[in-house]
Amino acid sequence: MSKKYDVIILGAGPAGLSAGVYTVRYGLSTLAIGKEPGGMASEATVVENYLGFSAITGAELTKRFEEHAKKAGVELLIYTNINSINKRGAGFEIETDKGRFSAKALIIALGKKKRKLQIPGEKELAGKGVSYCATCDAPLFKDKITAVIGGRNSAVTAALFLAKKCKKVYIVYRRDKLRSDLVLIERVRKEKKIEVVYDSVPISVNGKERVESLTIKRKDRKEELKLDGVFIEIGAVPSTELLTKNLKLKLDEEGCIVVKPSMATNVQGVFAAGDITNSSNKFDQIATAVGEGAVAANTVFRFLKNIKY
Amino acid sequence: MSKKYDVIILGAGPAGLSAGVYTVRYGLSTLAIGKEPGGMASEATVVENYLGFSAITGAELTKRFEEHAKKAGVELLIYTNINSINKRGAGFEIETDKGRFSAKALIIALGKKKRKLQIPGEKELAGKGVSYCATCDAPLFKDKITAVIGGRNSAVTAALFLAKKCKKVYIVYRRDKLRSDLVLIERVRKEKKIEVVYDSVPISVNGKERVESLTIKRKDRKEELKLDGVFIEIGAVPSTELLTKNLKLKLDEEGCIVVKPSMATNVQGVFAAGDITNSSNKFDQIATAVGEGAVAANTVFRFLKNIKY
Repeated sequence: MSKKYDVIILGAGPAGLSAGVYTVRYGLSTLAIGKEPGGMASEATVVENYLGFSAITGAELTKRFEEHAKKAGVELLIYTNINSINKRGAGFEIETDKGRFSAKALIIALGKKKRKLQIPGEKELAGKGVSYCATCDAPLFKDKITAVIGGRNSAVTAALFLAKKCKKVYIVYRRDKLRSDLVLIERVRKEKKIEVVYDSVPISVNGKERVESLTIKRKDRKEELKLDGVFIEIGAVPSTELLTKNLKLKLDEEGCIVVKPSMATNVQGVFAAGDITNSSNKFDQIATAVGEGAVAANTVFRFLKNIKY
Repeated sequence: MSKKYDVIILGAGPAGLSAGVYTVRYGLSTLAIGKEPGGMASEATVVENYLGFSAITGAELTKRFEEHAKKAGVELLIYTNINSINKRGAGFEIETDKGRFSAKALIIALGKKKRKLQIPGEKELAGKGVSYCATCDAPLFKDKITAVIGGRNSAVTAALFLAKKCKKVYIVYRRDKLRSDLVLIERVRKEKKIEVVYDSVPISVNGKERVESLTIKRKDRKEELKLDGVFIEIGAVPSTELLTKNLKLKLDEEGCIVVKPSMATNVQGVFAAGDITNSSNKFDQIATAVGEGAVAANTVFRFLKNIKY
């Protein structure tokens, strides 16, 4: 027998925990299942743009989110892998490595994962000069030298953002042309602090305590760029592996869950919030995740009480 | 000559301040103009559902929001009345009682205002026993009898707060059931000082110098409740008086600004966020306002840099 809840929230990041704070206030029994509390937000070196906290580490903010959710009455099952999501009658059953749980409604808030380079030094120097969030970490690189890996909008935007703080910013891109919007490319041209290194693939991030250099392969020739920070902006991917198999959730071309303004998905009883959705104009932030979680919770309440949503 | 900014944000509540934190991070000079910091959120007795703060007064949370925005670099012009919003060439000019200011883009985050009952005595006795803010005015009603008009979250929260100070608190509601969160309804049940008067509509507030009683119609029978204070908590209406005159902003049937997922309005260069919009499925919360502010700021940045949005 699986333990029964009104709502199971898949994911314990900002979207999931915000949703949970609301669902318990609506009197709905709520279980949130996640690999780790905080999701991608927990990795941020410093968060300065979630209103109310002018500067807080991702880890500390995550702790506050987790404490808030627990205090409100959300049951938290973290460090837990979800094996499958199954429709059962009018409800759903979740199989995890810690048991089975069932619910009348689901909120999917599994977030995204930053795509990794998967080169030596990347993992070892993460948080020590290797970053996946320019907006979060730029202030730490004032008057320093950095590189952004990638050549699409997110990478170029990150480089332009970094150029305001840094002494020099490389854009390291595997192609011979940036693939961002033309205006962005023009801005890069005008920004003397930025040097675009074309036809180049990162080979390793190097350094003892912190990042000291980046080795790249440029048209079959190895080069070493001396620098203090490496920003990896080669995209993030929605964590939707589990969702299409049994649920047949509608995803967009990037794999994000397509939601209505109510955060309802195409499957009755299944709602979604946060980076995994196509909502908030796809601006993936703690702020937008928290807002979407609130909306999803409100809609779940309406769904379960047969109120129009 | 008016002082020039990249962005002017109209409103200094959660949506406006969140937007400001983002716009300054994008390097855009930003002025936020508001009547008072925090907007309606500042009047909340206690906020328990904005992730990260398990219980905080609206006043304290507002202080944190304001400090965050200032520290980020938002110029704040508060306690200021906006007289008009005008299109000037490719930009906008704002006339206030503290001078003129111009900007290339606007973010409208003026929020909502508490709805009035529009019954005899309400206006005449405002500030003399009639109040729209329990947090602000509860201390004036120590050991007295008060009534809260309304039956949703804001009304029930106000009644619970007043019960800490008052001898007795009526909740006067037109329906036969409260429509607030279940946890709040349970707290009301346990609070012996609160009496819920269902199926009742206020007819007049009575008194010479100050409030002495409230006349209600209860299932077609008139009754008079002897009391000292009446707190009106029947919802809110968007503050859009200034917006349709010169800007021709598109509003929905409830007067909310119609926005796209990017928070763009129908007028080029004008964006909006928070309770005043039809976004977030019209779930007016601090959480959703903060999220919408972030999206609006991102879109303003893209608009000003000619990036597709």
